[in-house]
Amino acid sequence: MPAPRFLIVADGDFGPMTSKTANSVIRYLPDRTVAVLDREHAGKTVQDVLGFGGAIPIVASMRAGLNLGPTAVLIGIAPAGGRLPDEWRTWLAEALDAGCDLWNGLHSFLGDDPLLASKSKASGRKIFDLRKPPADLPIASGAAKAVEPYVVLTVGTDCNVGKMTAQLQLARELNASGLRTRFVATGQTGIMIEGWGIAVEAVVADFIAGAAERLVLQASDDADIVLVEGQGSINHPGYSAVTLGLMHGSCPDAMILCHQSTRQYIGDYREAAWLRIPPLADYIRLYETMGSVVHPTKVIGISLNTYDMSEDAARRACEAATRETGLPATDPVRFEAAPLLDAIHRGRQAYLIARKGLVTA
Amino acid sequence: MPAPRFLIVADGDFGPMTSKTANSVIRYLPDRTVAVLDREHAGKTVQDVLGFGGAIPIVASMRAGLNLGPTAVLIGIAPAGGRLPDEWRTWLAEALDAGCDLWNGLHSFLGDDPLLASKSKASGRKIFDLRKPPADLPIASGAAKAVEPYVVLTVGTDCNVGKMTAQLQLARELNASGLRTRFVATGQTGIMIEGWGIAVEAVVADFIAGAAERLVLQASDDADIVLVEGQGSINHPGYSAVTLGLMHGSCPDAMILCHQSTRQYIGDYREAAWLRIPPLADYIRLYETMGSVVHPTKVIGISLNTYDMSEDAARRACEAATRETGLPATDPVRFEAAPLLDAIHRGRQAYLIARKGLVTA
Repeated sequence: MPAPRFLIVADGDFGPMTSKTANSVIRYLPDRTVAVLDREHAGKTVQDVLGFGGAIPIVASMRAGLNLGPTAVLIGIAPAGGRLPDEWRTWLAEALDAGCDLWNGLHSFLGDDPLLASKSKASGRKIFDLRKPPADLPIASGAAKAVEPYVVLTVGTDCNVGKMTAQLQLARELNASGLRTRFVATGQTGIMIEGWGIAVEAVVADFIAGAAERLVLQASDDADIVLVEGQGSINHPGYSAVTLGLMHGSCPDAMILCHQSTRQYIGDYREAAWLRIPPLADYIRLYETMGSVVHPTKVIGISLNTYDMSEDAARRACEAATRETGLPATDPVRFEAAPLLDAIHRGRQAYLIARKGLVTA
Repeated sequence: MPAPRFLIVADGDFGPMTSKTANSVIRYLPDRTVAVLDREHAGKTVQDVLGFGGAIPIVASMRAGLNLGPTAVLIGIAPAGGRLPDEWRTWLAEALDAGCDLWNGLHSFLGDDPLLASKSKASGRKIFDLRKPPADLPIASGAAKAVEPYVVLTVGTDCNVGKMTAQLQLARELNASGLRTRFVATGQTGIMIEGWGIAVEAVVADFIAGAAERLVLQASDDADIVLVEGQGSINHPGYSAVTLGLMHGSCPDAMILCHQSTRQYIGDYREAAWLRIPPLADYIRLYETMGSVVHPTKVIGISLNTYDMSEDAARRACEAATRETGLPATDPVRFEAAPLLDAIHRGRQAYLIARKGLVTA
C-alpha cells in the first residue's frame, strides 16, 4: 500500500510530555503527518508546542483536518478514562466517510464499535487496531536463534526510558551506512512508525515469546541486522513477564541497555519509592544471565536518555556509565550514535566469524 | 454453592499418561467424581485403568453418566485437534438440559457456542470456562509482598514436573496439622480441584503479575500459609514469561524447586534435544536472583517427581538432590512429605520473627 498521510487526533492532551504516541510519529514521520487535531492549541504549529515538527498545522476540527488531504486518521493520545469519547466516535465516522483509514493503538478496538465497523464496511476503508494480536501465534520454538542476521534487542532499567527511540535512531544510521537493517516494532507506537509489528504486551501470556519469534523470522528475510524494540524491564513487577518473553522469543545475539540517567525508582511505583533502580552493572548481569539460558547474549553498549539534563551533565552521565560498566555509552538522539554503532559493528564481525566457523566446521 | 459432583468426559483418551486433567481431579476429588465417560474403557472401574480411583465407574454414554446423579460435567481431556467434536456438543447440551453445570478448561470457550449458550440460559445452569480470565485484572502493584501469611511458590526445571501436585499434597498435610493453608490455583486443573483461581497462561501479557497478585491477596484473607501453584520454567523459551510474571506478582517468601529426576531436556524441545536441563544449583541461583529483584526469596526445598523410577532409584535421587543443593528433597506424593513440611515450618518461623521485628521496630 502507498505510505499513509496521517491526521493525528490528540485533542485536549497535545504536549511535549503527554502525547507520547503522537510525538513519536511526528518525530519519525514528519513528512507523513499532515496535521494534528487539538482544539486547545489550534492555530499554532507543531513546532510551537513540541519544539520540533516544523510547520505541521494544528487544526480545530475533523473537517479542517480532512481538508488537508490525509489518507489515515491516527489516534495519538489515550483519551481520559480510556473509553472512546462520543465526540471522537463522530469524528472517526466522518473520517471513514471521507475515505480515510483509522490507525488505533488503544486497548479498546475501534473495529468492535458497531458504527465504525459499519462505516468501514460501507466505505471500504480499513480499521487498523494495532494492539489486536494475530489469531494464530505459535508457542516459541527457538527458531530465532538460528536466523542469519545479527539480532540486537534493547533492554531497559524501567519502562519508558528510550528502548524504541534508540533502535529507530540506530536503524536509520545503519541503513544510511549501507547495512540492511530492519527495526522490529513490538509496541503500538513502533508499529505506527514502521507499518508492521505486534504489540506483545497485548498478546496472551503463552504466546509472548512466539510473537517475538515470528517478528524476528519475518524481519530476517532480507536483512543484515535486526533491531528489536524492547519492552518493560526485567525487574519491573508489572511488566517483567513481557520483557523476559521478548528476550527468550527473539534470541538476541546482543543487547543494548537503555536508562534514563535521572531516574532513581522503577517508574510506576515512584510514589511509593518502592523499587530503587540498581546499578547498571546489576542489570547487565541479570539480562546476560537470563538471556543466555536460551541463547548466548551480551550487553554491548549503554543508551542513555538525558532529555531532562544540561548538556554538561548529560556528557558526564555518559562518561560515568562507561566507567561503571566498561561499555560504550551515549545518548544516541541528543549526541552522536557512533559509540553504539561501533559496538554493533564489532559485535557483528565477531558474530559472523563465529557463525562462519560453525557453518564450515 | 454446594460442592459439585462431577461426571468427567474423557472419551477416547482416558489413561494414566493421557488424561492429565481427569486424573488430577480424580486423585484429589475421588469422592466428588461420580463417573468417567469413555467408550473405550466402559464397564471397567477407574482403578482398572489408572491404578487409583477405586470403584468409580466408566460409562459408555452421557445418558448413563447422567443417571448417576452428577451436578456438573467436567471436560477431562483435550479433544484431538483442539476443537470441540460435534458429538461432545450434543452430550454437553444434554447435560445442561438435565440440570448439570459445565466445567471446561479448554482454550475454546463453551460459552461462545450458540447452542450451549442458549441451553445454559434456558436451563439456568452455569458454564464455567476456566481459562477465561477476569475482565478487570490490574497491573501488579507489589501488594503481595505485604500480606501476612507465609507465601510459598513452586518453581520448576520444566513444565509438567509436579508443581501443582506438590502444593496440593503439602496443603493437605499442613491443613491436617492445624495450619490454615490455602492453595492458589493458577492453571485449569488446579482451578477444577480448588473451585477458584485464574489460569494465568491465558491472561493478556500485561496482567500476568496482576493476576497472581490478586490471587495471593484473596487467599491471604484467612490463612497462615499460602501455597501458590507455579507454571512453566524460568528457562523454558515458550513459557518463561508466565513463570516470571507469576513470581513477581505473587512475591513468594520461599520457593520449592520441582524436578522430574529422569528428565534431561526441556520438554517440548526434546526431539531437538536443544535445551539440556542444567544442574539444580543453577536453577536455585536463577530463581533466587530473579525473584529477589522484587521481593527477597529463597529456595527452601526440592520436590522430585519419581513416578517412572524404581523405589530404590527414587530414594537415591532424593539423596543426590540433597547432596547437590544442601536442601531437603523428597517425592511428596510417593514418599513422606515431612522434609518439605519441616522446611516450610522452619522458614515460616524465621519469617514470623523477622516480620515481628519489622512491625515492632
